Amino acid sequence: MKYMRFKKDGETYFGVVKGHSITQLEGDYIKGETRPLATEFSLEEVEVLTPVVPGQVIGIGLNYELHAEETGKKIPEEPMMFMASPSAVTAHHTDIVLPTSEHRIDYEAELVIVIGKEAKHVEKEEAFSYIFGYTVGNDVSDRHLQKKDGQFTRAKSFPTFKPLGPVIETELNPNEAAIKLTLNGEVKQQSNTNDLIHDISELVAKVTEVMTLNPGDVIYTGTPSGVGPLSPGDVVEAEVDGIGVLRNTVK
Amino acid sequence: MKYMRFKKDGETYFGVVKGHSITQLEGDYIKGETRPLATEFSLEEVEVLTPVVPGQVIGIGLNYELHAEETGKKIPEEPMMFMASPSAVTAHHTDIVLPTSEHRIDYEAELVIVIGKEAKHVEKEEAFSYIFGYTVGNDVSDRHLQKKDGQFTRAKSFPTFKPLGPVIETELNPNEAAIKLTLNGEVKQQSNTNDLIHDISELVAKVTEVMTLNPGDVIYTGTPSGVGPLSPGDVVEAEVDGIGVLRNTVK
Repeated sequence: MKYMRFKKDGETYFGVVKGHSITQLEGDYIKGETRPLATEFSLEEVEVLTPVVPGQVIGIGLNYELHAEETGKKIPEEPMMFMASPSAVTAHHTDIVLPTSEHRIDYEAELVIVIGKEAKHVEKEEAFSYIFGYTVGNDVSDRHLQKKDGQFTRAKSFPTFKPLGPVIETELNPNEAAIKLTLNGEVKQQSNTNDLIHDISELVAKVTEVMTLNPGDVIYTGTPSGVGPLSPGDVVEAEVDGIGVLRNTVK
Repeated sequence: MKYMRFKKDGETYFGVVKGHSITQLEGDYIKGETRPLATEFSLEEVEVLTPVVPGQVIGIGLNYELHAEETGKKIPEEPMMFMASPSAVTAHHTDIVLPTSEHRIDYEAELVIVIGKEAKHVEKEEAFSYIFGYTVGNDVSDRHLQKKDGQFTRAKSFPTFKPLGPVIETELNPNEAAIKLTLNGEVKQQSNTNDLIHDISELVAKVTEVMTLNPGDVIYTGTPSGVGPLSPGDVVEAEVDGIGVLRNTVK
């Protein structure tokens, strides 16, 4: 199922997407059971919102071998966790706003885990039962501040630096999903989540060994090689096969 | 005023503390106006809760000159921000639980800012109007993981690693407050917030330049020199003059 949050005539709705049609739902799919209603919308007539409003945004650094190599860093033996502010989250079809023209600010296509129930000390084998589904993310990063601070939080937390969406797919095989990023139509990143150093269930286990995740919290699982800078006017599309295309423009 | 959240006979209350007496309040002081009620409690008969339940926990690294020196790192030109999970927060008089005996896990006494209203792009000159008050924190840190990960999030986010309390003082001069930590009665850290490299209003300005802070979010402002390891059975007391003593035992 593809779940979506959207706006129409100033009202916020939850829905299920099939092709170009959205069936409205009663209830918030992150909070519990939902029920399909009779109302249908067309994708073209709605404003897509982030499919979830996370309380915590966890990121994983250097989680694809080739990307770790391109940064010149050594591969982390355990998942390298950081946190970004939820105030950085932005939806499909919105602008990524570059706060300065003086720093290199990069795109990073990522598969994103959406947590479905309170998760604490989750065993690897049980991880999937804590996951609601998967969406696409762009882990936009100010490389200058990332290097200057050492800590990634500031470099990755500016408003609009965490595009997320357009939908949450609940039936994906997250360990075998093609991932791609195009910049102005040109392919820049192309990989598959089967190249992840620390896979989906290991990430959930390792993160919840430390902290409690709540429904709606998200884990950006890391980006493949091919990262590069954004410039005003760019159109950046992050795509995970089976979920969809997350499209943003750069300002 | 000293504000406190506490529990009595299974119920959670908000109150104002004077000496050993607590006056119950109607309303949550973080969310808006409160009104004193006729009910009084004695400090001795209640269970102290964290004075706030933060949505975001921001930390600042290396913010006292002598502490920066003792770590051998150079002084950051701008505040070095990181985030910890709110699930790490624990109250006055609770146990700090060491997840392993194999890593060095340190105490770090800190003055903590409690945000009072939505704060985004706040000017330094306006910072105080966004602050509700101040409390005491202990930024417990697994030094082994801090070094291994480079990122501080994991090392500082284990359950009980963020003691906070006992009260929020709204009338403190935060740029001139004595700060102290004792371990089993022995003074280990002793300084004054007038030694902060980046002062309180600068921290609020720099953090909100990046992210939006909401009422109840907290900023751990950094620790002075004298950090050291905790062991099971230890009693650790962090104190800021004018706020109070945050006392925890180690398990």
